[in-house]
Amino acid sequence: MKFCNQCGATVSLQVPVDDDRERHVCSACETIHYINPKVVVGCLPTVGDRILLCKRAIEPRFGMWTLPAGFMENGETSAEGAARETWEEAAAKAIDLALYRIFDVPYINQVYLFYRCRLENDSFGIGPESLESALFTEQEIPWDELAFPVVREMLQEYLVDRKTGDFPVRNTVISYGRKPPTEL
Amino acid sequence: MKFCNQCGATVSLQVPVDDDRERHVCSACETIHYINPKVVVGCLPTVGDRILLCKRAIEPRFGMWTLPAGFMENGETSAEGAARETWEEAAAKAIDLALYRIFDVPYINQVYLFYRCRLENDSFGIGPESLESALFTEQEIPWDELAFPVVREMLQEYLVDRKTGDFPVRNTVISYGRKPPTEL
Repeated sequence: MKFCNQCGATVSLQVPVDDDRERHVCSACETIHYINPKVVVGCLPTVGDRILLCKRAIEPRFGMWTLPAGFMENGETSAEGAARETWEEAAAKAIDLALYRIFDVPYINQVYLFYRCRLENDSFGIGPESLESALFTEQEIPWDELAFPVVREMLQEYLVDRKTGDFPVRNTVISYGRKPPTEL
Repeated sequence: MKFCNQCGATVSLQVPVDDDRERHVCSACETIHYINPKVVVGCLPTVGDRILLCKRAIEPRFGMWTLPAGFMENGETSAEGAARETWEEAAAKAIDLALYRIFDVPYINQVYLFYRCRLENDSFGIGPESLESALFTEQEIPWDELAFPVVREMLQEYLVDRKTGDFPVRNTVISYGRKPPTEL
């Protein structure tokens, strides 16, 4: 950030009065520009005993399989956002959403909220960000072609939880140390 | 937003290619400026059977009681943020944090993540945003002087859950219709 989005003047890093960390502050109108973590919302959609995955048509991890997810938008709830992403990436209508998994990813300033869900019907397809989408039984999941560690972790947990029918909401921190950040 | 924070040129609302909603787009460098929901993190701190509340020294709801909470910062986890807010607003060290309550508040573009916690010791005090902090038993909670409906709801749920020792993670949507937005 180099310029104030309110008045167009330059900004500089300063610790504002009554604050304890540096913010971008406008040199002219003194607006303080806060930058905060973003929320990524997604679904783990199922049809019977099969799980819906999407093959990514975008980088990073082009051609790898993932769960439908993306940035939460203003004006929507996290469940609405998760259903929207499922529609956009897999042309599938998510219903019966239940919060399932939360990840903190502080090194890229993100929080992930994932919902379990069913599909309203057996219909699914692709969107601009997917090459393909498909349903997988436990035995069919392409473990070596999953796009992100969080997808692997969530699928593994889900398959264990499904045996008992108890799906506790878990939250954990993802920290890859100094490795270069990658998006979900 | 009127100006691009990267180059200082004017921005206008446009639907970018491959997008389906209006964004602020720079007229010169074509940067797309996304605006996303913010995460508010907080704690429900307890010492034995008493709950720590803070009396607000800021608007809105100056002089009303609330739980320590505030905007999550870049670089921290939601639990770290919740503990930081507890320190800043009540000079209390939160330990044993367990995710407890999630609220979607779409009309002000916020998601709240609240943790149950204990205090490392019985020490607590105030910060710049609090007039006072105090421990309350169930009978002592100032129900008519609570700052926000979500605080009331969370305290009521906690007091019920405490009887069984089972604290399920709940998430619900707060929608006050057309009422003017208020911050947490």
